[in-house]
Amino acid sequence: MTNQYVPTFETLLSREDIIRRIIENWPVKRQEEEVLVEDALGRIPVLDICSQLTLPVARASSRDGVAVASSRFAQGMPDTSGWVQGVDFERADTGDDFSDTYDAVITIEDVELSGEGKLSIHEGVNVAPGCNVRLAGSTVREGEMLAKAGLPLRPRDLAGLQMGGITRVTVWKNPVVAFIPSGSELIALGTPLSRGKNIDTNSLLMRETLKEMGATPLCLPIVRDDGQEMADALNRAMPQADIIVMGGGSSKGEEDYTATLLHQQGKVLCHGAQAVPGKPLCAAIIAGKPVINLPGPFMAAYHGLEWCINGLVSHYLNRPARKRQTIEAALTKPLLGSDMVSMLVNMEVVQRRDGKGYLATPCSIRETPMSRSIMANGQYMTKLNQDIPAGGLIEVELLRGLEFIPVEEDKNL
Amino acid sequence: MTNQYVPTFETLLSREDIIRRIIENWPVKRQEEEVLVEDALGRIPVLDICSQLTLPVARASSRDGVAVASSRFAQGMPDTSGWVQGVDFERADTGDDFSDTYDAVITIEDVELSGEGKLSIHEGVNVAPGCNVRLAGSTVREGEMLAKAGLPLRPRDLAGLQMGGITRVTVWKNPVVAFIPSGSELIALGTPLSRGKNIDTNSLLMRETLKEMGATPLCLPIVRDDGQEMADALNRAMPQADIIVMGGGSSKGEEDYTATLLHQQGKVLCHGAQAVPGKPLCAAIIAGKPVINLPGPFMAAYHGLEWCINGLVSHYLNRPARKRQTIEAALTKPLLGSDMVSMLVNMEVVQRRDGKGYLATPCSIRETPMSRSIMANGQYMTKLNQDIPAGGLIEVELLRGLEFIPVEEDKNL
Repeated sequence: MTNQYVPTFETLLSREDIIRRIIENWPVKRQEEEVLVEDALGRIPVLDICSQLTLPVARASSRDGVAVASSRFAQGMPDTSGWVQGVDFERADTGDDFSDTYDAVITIEDVELSGEGKLSIHEGVNVAPGCNVRLAGSTVREGEMLAKAGLPLRPRDLAGLQMGGITRVTVWKNPVVAFIPSGSELIALGTPLSRGKNIDTNSLLMRETLKEMGATPLCLPIVRDDGQEMADALNRAMPQADIIVMGGGSSKGEEDYTATLLHQQGKVLCHGAQAVPGKPLCAAIIAGKPVINLPGPFMAAYHGLEWCINGLVSHYLNRPARKRQTIEAALTKPLLGSDMVSMLVNMEVVQRRDGKGYLATPCSIRETPMSRSIMANGQYMTKLNQDIPAGGLIEVELLRGLEFIPVEEDKNL
Repeated sequence: MTNQYVPTFETLLSREDIIRRIIENWPVKRQEEEVLVEDALGRIPVLDICSQLTLPVARASSRDGVAVASSRFAQGMPDTSGWVQGVDFERADTGDDFSDTYDAVITIEDVELSGEGKLSIHEGVNVAPGCNVRLAGSTVREGEMLAKAGLPLRPRDLAGLQMGGITRVTVWKNPVVAFIPSGSELIALGTPLSRGKNIDTNSLLMRETLKEMGATPLCLPIVRDDGQEMADALNRAMPQADIIVMGGGSSKGEEDYTATLLHQQGKVLCHGAQAVPGKPLCAAIIAGKPVINLPGPFMAAYHGLEWCINGLVSHYLNRPARKRQTIEAALTKPLLGSDMVSMLVNMEVVQRRDGKGYLATPCSIRETPMSRSIMANGQYMTKLNQDIPAGGLIEVELLRGLEFIPVEEDKNL
């Protein structure tokens, strides 16, 4: 088993180079699909979408009030004591249509209207043609753009589309991303633990993160470290997915079946990334589809998801890669980079006591990886050869909303 | 119909005061529920959750390599020519358990291992007790905190919980928020349009936004401007929901049945907010539940959702109100505030051509509300009496991810 082929590169590739290399070699087959507007949240329209309607259909009142003919006010305030509701005026609230006899609206605050329908108008009220009247099409006009190709649909966009009479939209189909966890040491959740065994938690990490990215996850069963089993699993996954992720078995020991398998089946584009944790990432194109071997350890898999899978899913969806919210924070201790790799560092971010800005502390490597992962509300990817002193400012990616950043004091509670 | 009760206040209340007043009068009945970890994304744990497991169960290799007894290296490099695999050493890859005979791991890069199981070790390799061995519990330890009460669960948290042997979590139940669209002018999507009619699009806006906020939406049928119909709809909604939102009918014209209804049925806390669009918002507590009357116009309803309903849903979930991502941007034209109200201004944000910061342009009020809503990738709420000159810096809330902010040139394409 020691004579297996292990693709190697003279130097590790940067994350950007790996993504570029995969995309250049990937004859991506995007598909379109038509979905109901009410199911289209977050989906990305293939083409610009324009209104099919004009609203309001006719001019309408823009205030709660009474509709009148402005011509009767041309010579100053008329005597309204003999006016009859429905003949000389009518009630018209915001958005209401009214008879074409009228062309202006006086707001309800400017009149007194008796229970018997007698109208008196406050002194000094000015009634010009069209006053307090909104024009036909003042909400939306036929042909007006309601959604732009390439921009994910927000709740307000969906409502806008409905306003324009649109019931279905053509969007990019979400890529199906298969995940195959591998490793003879892996057991499914609920199986009794024993020495040398490890619970497969990457499947859930993958599934939930892929959904956030706009992909449809296809989580497949655990396969053992066995070349044939893995080949079979890959062959079953290929026709079902647009992108295939194999977990584990990516480093260079005896059980590195995956890299060998990828080499046998397609074109390996890299085996090794300037990205720690997760350096042994291996990427190939097999039958026109990207097959990525993500390392098994939790944070390594997470890191690969964040940069590699995120990049590929976004490319399939024809959109820029999803970026996390960032804030600028001052480091509370020095951050030492490496000349070989960029490191993902979990960060604890707090708001300064004086409210002026944020502080970021790298999570202690003395903690367990799980503890670091839970404590972190931010993350930072170091650049090559980048040493930053304490107090240096970095752009931290936030892993929770701004509203959850504690203030500095809270840390000592 | 003009003699209806309309609650009025001497002055409009600020958004903060309204939220505070509702919360003070709301005997909120939060409920807990138990959900599977795999279904718990975004849910908020009621209590801290700690690991029930220790992983790895036993110390394990931290590298791909061979496990050996370090004592045999105490006097320098031993002669390994006679060593037998399985007796004098064994293969142990990252995460692997190995026999208790061994206490150290030599990395695969530092040895040559023949197909026949003969081991030779590179010169100069140092083998100390415990080297390349990770301790039991180095991934996660029993009792270690895996999720903190009050913090929404992220994909990495779910995986962490599974790692600690947790399969179910107790979280706050999502509040059910009922939405009752009202207005005789409203028609459901798909109904033929005619003069004076308007398509109900707020139901979809509500439904999708409420889901984003962590609420369970209950969208009810349109009711006409008829006091009895609205009372019936409210009575049907009350037992089904934790928060009730009635849409439309909130301003002061003839058809203001809603405010009257809220007054008849419970305690009205405000009718009028320093918030434009959406000023006529009316809030009451009826049978211990908040009933909010949001104005009908699209942006007014949107604005009320953003500050009022968001605040109430967050309070129910025992979390701080959701904040949107913000960026600092320079205004391209002056922004004039008001001394009476705070205004929600739709913004178009672009990245400066030189890459140094962002520019924000208020969407032109000459555009239709739909067009402004679609164009906007940001929003800003003015403060009372706040006039900001062109070039002034404001914190813009982003309505799309950072990756979608175009660069300045793109605007002229």
